[in-house]
Amino acid sequence: MKEKKENFNEWYNEVIEEAKLIDKRYPVKGMNVWLPYGWAIAKKMDEILRALMFETGHEEVYFPLLIPSDQFAKESEHIRGFGGEVFWVERGGNEKLDIPLILRPTSETAMYPMFSLWIRTHGDLPLKVFQIVNVFRYETKQTRAFLRVREIHFFEAHTCHENHEDSEKQINEDINIWEKFCQKMALPYILNKRPDWDKFAGANYTIAADTIMPSGRPLQIGTMHSYGQNFSKAYDIMFTKENGSRDYVYQTTFGISERIIGAIVGIHGDDRGLILPPEIAPYQIVIVPIISGDKEMIINESRKLYEEIKDEFRVKLDDRDDYTPGYKFYDWELKGVPLRIELGPRDIKNNVITVARRDTFERITIQRSEMLPRLKEILNEIQRNLRERAYKNMYSKIKEAKSIDDIKSNEDVNLIHWCGSKQCADIIDQESGKKVLGIPLNIEKKNGKCLICGKETDNLCYIGKPY
Amino acid sequence: MKEKKENFNEWYNEVIEEAKLIDKRYPVKGMNVWLPYGWAIAKKMDEILRALMFETGHEEVYFPLLIPSDQFAKESEHIRGFGGEVFWVERGGNEKLDIPLILRPTSETAMYPMFSLWIRTHGDLPLKVFQIVNVFRYETKQTRAFLRVREIHFFEAHTCHENHEDSEKQINEDINIWEKFCQKMALPYILNKRPDWDKFAGANYTIAADTIMPSGRPLQIGTMHSYGQNFSKAYDIMFTKENGSRDYVYQTTFGISERIIGAIVGIHGDDRGLILPPEIAPYQIVIVPIISGDKEMIINESRKLYEEIKDEFRVKLDDRDDYTPGYKFYDWELKGVPLRIELGPRDIKNNVITVARRDTFERITIQRSEMLPRLKEILNEIQRNLRERAYKNMYSKIKEAKSIDDIKSNEDVNLIHWCGSKQCADIIDQESGKKVLGIPLNIEKKNGKCLICGKETDNLCYIGKPY
Repeated sequence: MKEKKENFNEWYNEVIEEAKLIDKRYPVKGMNVWLPYGWAIAKKMDEILRALMFETGHEEVYFPLLIPSDQFAKESEHIRGFGGEVFWVERGGNEKLDIPLILRPTSETAMYPMFSLWIRTHGDLPLKVFQIVNVFRYETKQTRAFLRVREIHFFEAHTCHENHEDSEKQINEDINIWEKFCQKMALPYILNKRPDWDKFAGANYTIAADTIMPSGRPLQIGTMHSYGQNFSKAYDIMFTKENGSRDYVYQTTFGISERIIGAIVGIHGDDRGLILPPEIAPYQIVIVPIISGDKEMIINESRKLYEEIKDEFRVKLDDRDDYTPGYKFYDWELKGVPLRIELGPRDIKNNVITVARRDTFERITIQRSEMLPRLKEILNEIQRNLRERAYKNMYSKIKEAKSIDDIKSNEDVNLIHWCGSKQCADIIDQESGKKVLGIPLNIEKKNGKCLICGKETDNLCYIGKPY
Repeated sequence: MKEKKENFNEWYNEVIEEAKLIDKRYPVKGMNVWLPYGWAIAKKMDEILRALMFETGHEEVYFPLLIPSDQFAKESEHIRGFGGEVFWVERGGNEKLDIPLILRPTSETAMYPMFSLWIRTHGDLPLKVFQIVNVFRYETKQTRAFLRVREIHFFEAHTCHENHEDSEKQINEDINIWEKFCQKMALPYILNKRPDWDKFAGANYTIAADTIMPSGRPLQIGTMHSYGQNFSKAYDIMFTKENGSRDYVYQTTFGISERIIGAIVGIHGDDRGLILPPEIAPYQIVIVPIISGDKEMIINESRKLYEEIKDEFRVKLDDRDDYTPGYKFYDWELKGVPLRIELGPRDIKNNVITVARRDTFERITIQRSEMLPRLKEILNEIQRNLRERAYKNMYSKIKEAKSIDDIKSNEDVNLIHWCGSKQCADIIDQESGKKVLGIPLNIEKKNGKCLICGKETDNLCYIGKPY
């Protein structure tokens, strides 16, 4: 395998292929086959999201894939933003369709005509729904597994509220859900309020969660949008207030995609392959019997061990006959299983197990009698360590910059003073290829001068070359 | 609500709408919005299928939605069968695509080019994968919720084997899985080997599971197909045998769709609405507090009860403030929750709960101390009763027939002697609109004469007007 530090892009492609997450040989560009191991990770992610959404009173729905083009065109900003990158269905069987259909690039325009039928009074609000579906975008840029594809595994939540304040509270709830979610993914991120020219097509504002990949390039991995009444006016989503007057609802959305898996691969992995956070790993523990001497006894003891822990953890017993322990170590390290248990004659005799951490390679001997709590402890420690390490790495990829030369001297994200004008952002882009990620949330303001025009400003912002 | 017996079709449409399973007002014909309750049932069905498939060594994958038309066209029977009913994608953004794409109507032609890359030797066999996806068919016939739609929630398993015997064993495994699955759905069925002219396009033979709806019309709810080497030859899926020679793999598929939900609605429901088998019900038990006197105490006791049983069952506590118990009874009966617990002051005082069965309306008083095992028992009893009742109803819809007049005298399924010829099947169809469902499995052969041509035959077969 390529060294991650030497050539991140090649390493990334290689590890995805060798760990058997997806197969890129499907004969349509940017559409990949999810192999069992990759799909198991995606399903785990979905499950975690579902639980978080149900906890916060969202309901799960499923809207059709195909959207009539006349519905799609109703919100003018939205169609301007997405119109050029949708797949069109204009023929069914041998018949030309009366109204051309598009494959959902996102589901506002599928959902909102229905919301307009569902919502009558304030009693119907808030409406909080989500769906987990695939969306389709006719990408013309170079595609890259998980990061830029044409069929995207996607989570989208849509909410309607009585007033602006309630929709703001929803965005805050989304931010809380997002933090809990990222804890489970062990992913670090910064939140940025995108500049107006980079917000979601049809939104009043967009808050994006960006992480930074080992290449130094930022990757947008989650977004929360406030739509105000832009869509509700276009789709006629009205409600009767308590006082009898009528108003349009205030809307938000919250989106997460398979890019999360790309981030997990890129951020946690190492030269031996994937490292999966225990919370999302399809297998948290793999048991590898170390055959020496009485083979049958060792296999039986391994099965017993498996039975003892399988209700507490997601465990794989690798009792394949025709592979050496060394090959199995290699294989499960490549697949990023967080914890390996080796069980050999000496372990059995001494009533212990030997575990090896995937994140630190540390080997620990555990008494069988203390096994369950100790394994739990170590998995928690791995989860914690991965996140801490990822945060440290992310911050090491952020460099303060005072001049265009500073910016051009590295490929990483820079923290700069920026006056807020598009003009200055454009100059930065032209000079360095780096883009303003927006105004960061959760950062202390500091007086300074715009790096381009020199104007006094307390706006700090991140810039980088996004995926 | 319409009476089920009086007008099954109208009752069916009404119950689906009122129980809020789907919303049919989506502006594309035959594509419906899955509402939270309907989607929860579908997800439960998916989960049950997944568990059964994992138990039998299948792996879950996800293949892209879009299939290049040149791949789609490789198996000549298959393209003949499906070519006229696919949706076409011929444009992305503003560009005409080089190779037109189709929306998967089923995934043989997406999967098999990849299988040809994956399979090299006998060590790669058997290959057993499945996916749960939506498939798309440009239906020109009248659409009907769950039974005939253009976007279909679909389960499909695909396997490859070394030889014919192994693929036959796979079909038997599928039949076993199917039986376990139908036990959980409480659905009765008959298995029929379809006549050649009605088998899956590209298959050597098709075994279909048909149930019979209260209307007397048969509904195909599951299929197992044996492809032999038809597809592997078209897609060049070869392997090296132990003796070094090369051969094409033998393939099977196994498919189940959202029709299952239509069958559950139609077969179990009654004039008050849905009746869901406990195994698939999103809520198995609903707790309705009967407020009288000390409201706070009763609500608190209901919450306590909820906490006591929520880890053992899927429970909903209906503590809505602004609805009467009567309305809540009505509402949850409509939604088919198998068991209702009523908790009033007297129950609390006497340390009992009162439960009402959705299937029989029987009311039972249970000591709190025996609650958990008793509730489990009653739910099992409901599951058993629903299935038994459904089987009885199904068999009551099968009538032996000795003449065309017999057949025409009812709208139900008939059991007849049939010589096996297409000619006689066509005459039956022309005279009565009923179609030969094929040769039943698991039925004793009996000598007799073909109802049409009078030829001696021991072929008994079912005929009916399929949905």
